[in-house]
Amino acid sequence: MRGGAAGDRLDVSDVVRLASQLVDIPSVSGEETRIADAVERALRACPHLSVDRDGDAVVARTHLGRARRVVLAGHLDTVPISANVPGRMERREQGGAAAEVLWGRGSVDMLGGVAVLLHAAAALSRPRHDATWVFYDHEEVAASLNGLGRLAGRHPEWLAGDLAILGEPTAARIEGGCNGTLRVIAAFAGVAAHSARSWRGDNAIHRMGPVIERIAAFGNPVVEVDGLGFRESLSVVRIGGGRAANVIPDEATMTVNYRFAPSTTGEQALDLVRSVFEGSGAVLEVDDLAEGARPGLDSPLAQEFVRAAGRGAPIGPKYGWTDVARFASLGVPALNYGPGDPMLAHTVDEHVPVDQIRQCARTVMYWLERPAHAGPGKEMS
Amino acid sequence: MRGGAAGDRLDVSDVVRLASQLVDIPSVSGEETRIADAVERALRACPHLSVDRDGDAVVARTHLGRARRVVLAGHLDTVPISANVPGRMERREQGGAAAEVLWGRGSVDMLGGVAVLLHAAAALSRPRHDATWVFYDHEEVAASLNGLGRLAGRHPEWLAGDLAILGEPTAARIEGGCNGTLRVIAAFAGVAAHSARSWRGDNAIHRMGPVIERIAAFGNPVVEVDGLGFRESLSVVRIGGGRAANVIPDEATMTVNYRFAPSTTGEQALDLVRSVFEGSGAVLEVDDLAEGARPGLDSPLAQEFVRAAGRGAPIGPKYGWTDVARFASLGVPALNYGPGDPMLAHTVDEHVPVDQIRQCARTVMYWLERPAHAGPGKEMS
Repeated sequence: MRGGAAGDRLDVSDVVRLASQLVDIPSVSGEETRIADAVERALRACPHLSVDRDGDAVVARTHLGRARRVVLAGHLDTVPISANVPGRMERREQGGAAAEVLWGRGSVDMLGGVAVLLHAAAALSRPRHDATWVFYDHEEVAASLNGLGRLAGRHPEWLAGDLAILGEPTAARIEGGCNGTLRVIAAFAGVAAHSARSWRGDNAIHRMGPVIERIAAFGNPVVEVDGLGFRESLSVVRIGGGRAANVIPDEATMTVNYRFAPSTTGEQALDLVRSVFEGSGAVLEVDDLAEGARPGLDSPLAQEFVRAAGRGAPIGPKYGWTDVARFASLGVPALNYGPGDPMLAHTVDEHVPVDQIRQCARTVMYWLERPAHAGPGKEMS
Repeated sequence: MRGGAAGDRLDVSDVVRLASQLVDIPSVSGEETRIADAVERALRACPHLSVDRDGDAVVARTHLGRARRVVLAGHLDTVPISANVPGRMERREQGGAAAEVLWGRGSVDMLGGVAVLLHAAAALSRPRHDATWVFYDHEEVAASLNGLGRLAGRHPEWLAGDLAILGEPTAARIEGGCNGTLRVIAAFAGVAAHSARSWRGDNAIHRMGPVIERIAAFGNPVVEVDGLGFRESLSVVRIGGGRAANVIPDEATMTVNYRFAPSTTGEQALDLVRSVFEGSGAVLEVDDLAEGARPGLDSPLAQEFVRAAGRGAPIGPKYGWTDVARFASLGVPALNYGPGDPMLAHTVDEHVPVDQIRQCARTVMYWLERPAHAGPGKEMS
């Protein structure tokens, strides 16, 4: 019997109160059962939704026979708590006006976004497009555990749709697609010798010099994809080598991370990284490779969402890799859009202005509750 | 009461048997009392010697009123035993002739050399120059513990002389002086950022590239000092940095070892190392600095020793830092000369051809027992 049988009752009618309730339920990766139970109960209370569950992932769908289906998704887990659960509300004076801020683990990444989706899922009994609401587990840990990946493998039909919105924190910007990421571990070999007779050895660390120079010279080129500029990064993130202070090192390792624009394939990214190691003799091992996702902003559905978010919502690329790429690999174009400053994600100071939560909820509601033939309304001007 | 009171009796009359006896007495650094007791007893049995002791260092001197005094020194300690004590004799067939080899910890570094010195100390009752025989402790460990350094501080008069011979293994080559050694730890600083947005950070590892390139380009220049060519080495011996696979590193460290010719001062060596870090922003800390020692082969006494060693004895520089530099800092020119291949020092396979032990003993005896006015004898032709 699930612990949530007599468990948490969520108030889906007030998106801010809902966000606060979600933050107060500890939901560190691997311990999502309680929050998943609460979310499942709230969704099952909605007669317009069918609800499925796999592990601690919950998927709710409308079946209105619309021509198109949109998928709105968010993960339920957080990184470990830093004495910031339960959360707290704070009233701030900003330029004479009062602003409310919700503090606590997950307020940014991404229980604020989950509140937006859950509130909208309950409220939108007749959305203009059929809607699939996905809440999943294990996003903050190894990719092999990722709940969305598990659903894609076991129940790909649950995730089918024409556009996906991922509620990851973007500070209510629209962030299209994401860069891919490639991590390579390079092993340099040499020949040990006493450091007083270095010519008898072959210094593995010395072979790293030209490689580091080439990587540092790469800079941060901007690649335009579907009208958005994706800035790339190529970095040495770890280095190590040396046996003793009087021995020429016979081995050394270097970890390189390449964040590549979504117009580049993983294979092309690997070719580029291989080229910077040319002549070094290093043996490369691919430690992690995840393709990027094109922004997909050129589709009519995405354009509709952009209009709903209003002219004031800035549009840019996502640099960090997110689960939009999983949707892209299923053939579903995907955008990131959610409350909270992504730079605060995972910090002890994680907090979100409640106005951003409200704004994101308004956007989703406005997008999906309006009849398809209507133009932008007065409230968005 | 010392354990040696009823302890080991050394046979100083046969240099090879003596070497074998010394190897059989465990004498890892810090545990030299037993071997020092045995050496002290053997020296006190010689009426022509006065004997002093400080800790586990033993110094024996003749007082014949000669115009010159020579110092012959060796350390009693070894690196840790690897199942190679007691030692063993092996008979090898080499090109049809039989050759004996002594195996065991310290056979090379440097109880073979100690046997040569102790045998000669006992045998040379009226050496042509006054002789000081020095046997000391703690050479294989931190320089601050070095027994010769302790004697230089407490009893510099015990070490006074016009030329010193250090019996360190040289495979019976004459090795003049030694390179100096400088070890510097460089700390590189940067600014952390997510590796998906590297432009927001400053990669500490990337700052290492040009430094490694300059060090690798240094090569191994040969510097001629007093007629000998000293080959230098400049090497990165350790490198480390990086916090996590998705974080731009904000700190990294590099250890550099410079082995510099004895015509270069420690301060000049440091200037050179500083110059390769120029522009990198690295903060340098001197971890170790020991001046080199000039070969001193131009002195008449050294020339006399070279003649005694015979025309066949090759002469070269010493690359590793040895205690000849301590004598140099006391104003005593010093040479390395002893049995055993220095490349076998500290290895599990440590072994020395007994012919080299005999050859070194002959050289010392021949040098010091002949009257000063005689030319090279027939036996050296």
